Amino acid sequence: METRNGVLYFDGCDTVELAEKYGTPLYLVSESMIIRKCNELKECFLNRYSGTRAAYAGKAYLTMSMCKILEREGLCLDVVSGGELYTAIQAGFPAERIEFNGNNKLFEEIEMAVDYGVGRIIIDGTQELPMIESICEKKKKKISILIRINPGVESLTHAHMVTGNTDSKFGIPLEEDVIFPVIKAAIGSNYLNFMGFHFHIGSQIFDLEPYLLAVDAVLNLSKEVRERYGYSIEEINIGGGYAVQYVKEEENKTWDYYLEPVMKKIDTFFKQEGMNHPAVVIEPGRSLVADAGMTLYTVGSVKEIRNIRKYISVDGGMADNIRPALYGAKYDGVIANKADQPRVEKVSICGKCCESGDVLIRDLQTAEAEAGDILAVFKTGAYCYAMANNYNKSRTPAMVLLKDGSAQLIVKRQSYESLTCNEVIPFYPGK
Amino acid sequence: METRNGVLYFDGCDTVELAEKYGTPLYLVSESMIIRKCNELKECFLNRYSGTRAAYAGKAYLTMSMCKILEREGLCLDVVSGGELYTAIQAGFPAERIEFNGNNKLFEEIEMAVDYGVGRIIIDGTQELPMIESICEKKKKKISILIRINPGVESLTHAHMVTGNTDSKFGIPLEEDVIFPVIKAAIGSNYLNFMGFHFHIGSQIFDLEPYLLAVDAVLNLSKEVRERYGYSIEEINIGGGYAVQYVKEEENKTWDYYLEPVMKKIDTFFKQEGMNHPAVVIEPGRSLVADAGMTLYTVGSVKEIRNIRKYISVDGGMADNIRPALYGAKYDGVIANKADQPRVEKVSICGKCCESGDVLIRDLQTAEAEAGDILAVFKTGAYCYAMANNYNKSRTPAMVLLKDGSAQLIVKRQSYESLTCNEVIPFYPGK
Repeated sequence: METRNGVLYFDGCDTVELAEKYGTPLYLVSESMIIRKCNELKECFLNRYSGTRAAYAGKAYLTMSMCKILEREGLCLDVVSGGELYTAIQAGFPAERIEFNGNNKLFEEIEMAVDYGVGRIIIDGTQELPMIESICEKKKKKISILIRINPGVESLTHAHMVTGNTDSKFGIPLEEDVIFPVIKAAIGSNYLNFMGFHFHIGSQIFDLEPYLLAVDAVLNLSKEVRERYGYSIEEINIGGGYAVQYVKEEENKTWDYYLEPVMKKIDTFFKQEGMNHPAVVIEPGRSLVADAGMTLYTVGSVKEIRNIRKYISVDGGMADNIRPALYGAKYDGVIANKADQPRVEKVSICGKCCESGDVLIRDLQTAEAEAGDILAVFKTGAYCYAMANNYNKSRTPAMVLLKDGSAQLIVKRQSYESLTCNEVIPFYPGK
Repeated sequence: METRNGVLYFDGCDTVELAEKYGTPLYLVSESMIIRKCNELKECFLNRYSGTRAAYAGKAYLTMSMCKILEREGLCLDVVSGGELYTAIQAGFPAERIEFNGNNKLFEEIEMAVDYGVGRIIIDGTQELPMIESICEKKKKKISILIRINPGVESLTHAHMVTGNTDSKFGIPLEEDVIFPVIKAAIGSNYLNFMGFHFHIGSQIFDLEPYLLAVDAVLNLSKEVRERYGYSIEEINIGGGYAVQYVKEEENKTWDYYLEPVMKKIDTFFKQEGMNHPAVVIEPGRSLVADAGMTLYTVGSVKEIRNIRKYISVDGGMADNIRPALYGAKYDGVIANKADQPRVEKVSICGKCCESGDVLIRDLQTAEAEAGDILAVFKTGAYCYAMANNYNKSRTPAMVLLKDGSAQLIVKRQSYESLTCNEVIPFYPGK
């Protein structure tokens, strides 16, 4: 991101030209930045520790183009639905590098996953194991599984974050009569290759401690499993949730901040116990892709509520980025065609949806805004396109992939026609 | 809604059979209930007071089938985007019965509205009037307009609700040098037919008082306009926002509760002032359609977090109903295939999205739930389909219109193919 001749450039591209060419609202994705993040991940984790993998969490942002980038960069992919699995397979992403998560996988989804031959299914719930087993038996296929645990056991309740996690729809509780029958069945199954344990403690987590506590739970469980069943797990998946700095008031945490102490703890444990070191897998989503996204809007109505607030309306809003309304998420941005002008006024950026909650940024310091200006909102790479909706029959924006000054359309703007394309008008006999 | 042989029936249809036939998640819409609501509206408002209209707020729920029902019932339609306008026109809804709202109407959208010849454009912002005028001039068309005001003036600040409204992206503030130039321009325009004023104070409003305060503001303004310009307005649009009772803990307010005192105030004012009584228009959305909707899900994973909570996962969630996550909205429901069984356990209904916030109902008292059960969630007619999204690449559910025991598919379930149908995989030369 830089300014040239007063205009904002992103990955070497003139954002104002992009807005003109492709229209607004427009999602931009910087391939260079995704690659840079992949390289960071290799340096601080994948190449630094042997036997590690990163399965990008597709729920943050998934297009076929993204799958292509991930494939080329050697990453794995974490999917959570038949739709994500479908998208990856359509893009030609290798099935054996796909890991299938989710608290309520449907029978058809598991069938899809087994048919395609995904690399891992992460079992999340006691009913899932027999369901997967029966599908594998029918299809005469063997599949590798992990068991997702809910690490929020009593011993961990002093950490507020983790206490929250105890009351969760995710993971299998670590209770004697709940978790061990699943583990035993997994070990004894002819159709399942039991690899180890998985946890994921949440999203946008700025603290290290809950990770360490959850790792403790998995390590203790692994030891217990070896003692009880003489079975050594081969893999630990510690999920994602690494925080992204959206605005400068927030902390900027690196992957290293979390992963170095976590890896140290895991290494130490397995050395001390004299057990084989398992593969360690992480699932970064937001932290890999948030910074690589930007959304361009055109400014329309400018409304001053004297002594209270100046509202700048843009041509998108909660339909293309529901995070401010849903999570109170904060974003930064700039008027792209006035990128070097002094930011003389404080405004609120609101969307065009017929709803008061449709405010994208409260109190943004900007150059003086007027109709026709292009507003760039930063770090919209994660959970914006992924959660896009047709509220107010808004059409999902187009998306352009940028790389070193070149731009390619990767998602076409939704058409008006497609808004009603699944509709059927019923026929009323005699009316 | 009734129970027959232990099964939940909706508008005369067996919900368990519907789930089996059309799959789940499944949106149901009861045409009978919509018609009943339309009849209520006629009785308490449209037929009771002369010169009244109701423009259904399409943002709550809009399909072409809904447009057909509204047309037949004689209602008008309030749209807030090109997409809603497109949908109505596709359904053959008469353009002259369409009213176009929105805080940031785009140039293209206004062009569409003028081309189709909508009945009203509600001007919301000082820049909109010249934009509409220039479009009408170019197209040599005249269009009827109202001016949306922000009624949150100083004199009204004692009502908390309205205070909130002062800080709003909607409406034109009632300040001398802001509102009157717009009114004057509207009166003097050769291309605009200035009808009167509009306000809409919010959504799910259980109190009468803010309506009365906002009406006061419009009445005073109307009088002021006659005194200054000798111009008598012909129409007042008091918006919608009438509350719906989602769960029994909430109040049940009728339209009459709001409309009778409001109409009395308006009538009294115009009689006292010796002015012609204007047409009064309302914009009910949710209050017309919420009760007419129901969503059916299939129960999958059942997970008990001992001493804390029992989670029942269903095959939909925040992708088809984001209101619990977005607004903390509450819903009631029942296990449709066990509708007459005692509700012996308290459970939380969660969706299948990979996100802790994806909980549809906290603490629902149900019959004992098990995988394969059909869960019916009530009153999902408003802002569920309208806000449906593809989060986690979930596919938008099918929708069936019910009437007296017959059912017709009005929206097909989204296909996997359509999830990527707008995507293009970029071509990399030499890679």
